[in-house]
Amino acid sequence: MSQDMSNLFADLPPEGAAEEAFATLVTAPGARIERIVSRGQASPPGFWYDQDEWVAVLAGAATLRFEDAPEPLHLTPGDHVLISAHRHHRVEKTADPTIWLAVHLARG
Amino acid sequence: MSQDMSNLFADLPPEGAAEEAFATLVTAPGARIERIVSRGQASPPGFWYDQDEWVAVLAGAATLRFEDAPEPLHLTPGDHVLISAHRHHRVEKTADPTIWLAVHLARG
Repeated sequence: MSQDMSNLFADLPPEGAAEEAFATLVTAPGARIERIVSRGQASPPGFWYDQDEWVAVLAGAATLRFEDAPEPLHLTPGDHVLISAHRHHRVEKTADPTIWLAVHLARG
Repeated sequence: MSQDMSNLFADLPPEGAAEEAFATLVTAPGARIERIVSRGQASPPGFWYDQDEWVAVLAGAATLRFEDAPEPLHLTPGDHVLISAHRHHRVEKTADPTIWLAVHLARG
């Protein structure tokens, strides 16, 4: 492997890690690409994300809840979703481990 | 699945498809996210890509060649690489199928 290549499925935080692990892979003027590893964590009660982003689950499983939708969204590997700014959402549940790819999008 | 969710590993082009299949997943002011499925294709001889992009191999395998590097780069699932603009590169070889995720980045 060259020094500028790494692997999305490698270097996971240890099992039972208390916190999700966030790693920024790319920072560009219009987008930030991030790998997130969840180990069963959920968003804190009452917490809602409010950001323009595209997320994909690459391994594991997750349940997203949107403030404006009665039913949660269950994501399995390969599922991806574009979340518009101000569409409040939270992570209700994750498998251990769950590997996410997130692309945070700058407003135009 | 909700109407705004789809799967990176689904809806592959048929085996033996002559052309790579490009699908734009997200178009934003600063980035375009694309799913690419290769079925053994390579870039045409003498062809070099010249674009600012981040690519990951999600399934399959691929060999990238950079005009400025003597050795090719072999990518297996999860491997990702940020390619700076003007770093000419071509796809030398792909497994059938190879599923790529590409994020084309706008210049700042």
